[in-house]
Amino acid sequence: MAQVYDRVALIGLGLIASSMFWAVKRAGLAGEVTGYARSQATRDSARRIGLCDRVCDSAAEAVKDADLVVLCVPVGAMGAVAAEIAPQLKPGATLSDVGSVKQAVIEAVAPHLPAGVHFIPAHPLAGTEHSGPESGFAELFDNRWCLLVPVPDTAAEPLARLRTFWEGLGANVDEMDPAHHDLVLAVTSHTPHLIAYTMVGVADDLRRVTDSEVIKYSAAGFRDFTRIAASDPTMWRDVFLTNKDATLEILGRFTEELFALQRAIRIGDGEKLFDYFTRTRAIRRSIIEAGQDTDAPDFGRIGPKK
Amino acid sequence: MAQVYDRVALIGLGLIASSMFWAVKRAGLAGEVTGYARSQATRDSARRIGLCDRVCDSAAEAVKDADLVVLCVPVGAMGAVAAEIAPQLKPGATLSDVGSVKQAVIEAVAPHLPAGVHFIPAHPLAGTEHSGPESGFAELFDNRWCLLVPVPDTAAEPLARLRTFWEGLGANVDEMDPAHHDLVLAVTSHTPHLIAYTMVGVADDLRRVTDSEVIKYSAAGFRDFTRIAASDPTMWRDVFLTNKDATLEILGRFTEELFALQRAIRIGDGEKLFDYFTRTRAIRRSIIEAGQDTDAPDFGRIGPKK
Repeated sequence: MAQVYDRVALIGLGLIASSMFWAVKRAGLAGEVTGYARSQATRDSARRIGLCDRVCDSAAEAVKDADLVVLCVPVGAMGAVAAEIAPQLKPGATLSDVGSVKQAVIEAVAPHLPAGVHFIPAHPLAGTEHSGPESGFAELFDNRWCLLVPVPDTAAEPLARLRTFWEGLGANVDEMDPAHHDLVLAVTSHTPHLIAYTMVGVADDLRRVTDSEVIKYSAAGFRDFTRIAASDPTMWRDVFLTNKDATLEILGRFTEELFALQRAIRIGDGEKLFDYFTRTRAIRRSIIEAGQDTDAPDFGRIGPKK
Repeated sequence: MAQVYDRVALIGLGLIASSMFWAVKRAGLAGEVTGYARSQATRDSARRIGLCDRVCDSAAEAVKDADLVVLCVPVGAMGAVAAEIAPQLKPGATLSDVGSVKQAVIEAVAPHLPAGVHFIPAHPLAGTEHSGPESGFAELFDNRWCLLVPVPDTAAEPLARLRTFWEGLGANVDEMDPAHHDLVLAVTSHTPHLIAYTMVGVADDLRRVTDSEVIKYSAAGFRDFTRIAASDPTMWRDVFLTNKDATLEILGRFTEELFALQRAIRIGDGEKLFDYFTRTRAIRRSIIEAGQDTDAPDFGRIGPKK
């Protein structure tokens, strides 16, 4: 694949930025990739493993002369980082991000934008429960979706170029407006994460069931929740604080449904339970047909382990 | 491994029974394994794929002369099956089961027991989202736990023999009393399943978010829930109907915690969220160290897929 940007700057060097770097290299999408992380330890790790062509000691230095700057920091930090780098952004450059919430990022970043810089928020729907500069790998975005969330008056050429870039990273690309993005993600990601965190917290709290029992017998379903609930705490705190309205709405719907099923259990309404559990099976099938998950039993993790 | 029983009968030929058969063969644990399923289609499938040494057309025929009879039917069907086979059970035989709930199975099965038959309820904590006679495989129980739930006056020799049998199937074996079993499983399995079913149902209901969006963007976390919510509807209906008290208690605790986190989101209490999300990470680590899940990112399902 041909080079899409001469110089790309990644601000924040966690799972997403590090995967972007390896995927950029795999496809030769950029001439040079610079990187910056606030923590010295993260910068040291990055330098040690060859993450980024050049790791800089300031955000200002990293974004200098960059054609694409991608903010890969927690959503709550986007505004401050944008304010810091804004004076250094090259006219004609594209500023993007990878945040899981879009309306809040736009509100936080847009006021700092200098004239002549194209701001195109984005959100790759990819990740693992691991975090940090050493957790990235080139395949993370392969066949995953990246949502571009253009603001009003986004110019066509920078938008098309950013799309080409994400396709080069392996992703399928869609466009979506910010409010709809935040609602869709509240359903497919934010609420499921909160529920998983809650269930794991409940298990951890129970005094009549010991920790060791919860851990030993986790394979009966619980361990899937613990994977989700092992995700980065800072990132997820910011997601819930900044996508408050959509998350609370979906949580409200979830609670209503849960109470209806709870009532069915209490009164012994087996037909309602059976019908509900039958309907949800079809969605799994569609996800597998859409290539968004494996059909291998238990995600393929089962096999001889002794 | 040496033969543990001369003849084993499996009643019900779904995921667990079919996996038991292949694991019995792998280790040479039985002289002959007979099988029976209520549905003609299931018996036909079993015969076609060589599941069981002999597939019988009645439960009575299958259990005749068996040294171990294992009920592998949904929890709600255990009582009726026990009543049907009781007259045919050989004196000295062991009757066991694999149901996910233990108090209700004991109440349903015990009244039908003929004198001289050893009843030892059991529950292997293993499974996948697939079901039916063709979904089984010999490795299902490897390094998973099987809980034996002896009733009062269980004789030592049949108990030790059943333990040896399950160890031969690949499992680690623990003993537990029925009430505690049902509570532990409500935490590690039953409540997580109900929550997953509910979340998938909510997503399916939402008209403002189309099905295709939910499916396309499921990799952001939701797809893990859909796997759990694709489990067998009959089995899970019976679990909730028969483990009502423990499930409702854990659901109550879950709802309380969820409301506390919901309130933290509403009032913007980031510190509470961060602390909560940090605490739950440690449980994941313990599960991996206990060998109950993989540390590979995203259960190891990530990789080049294009």
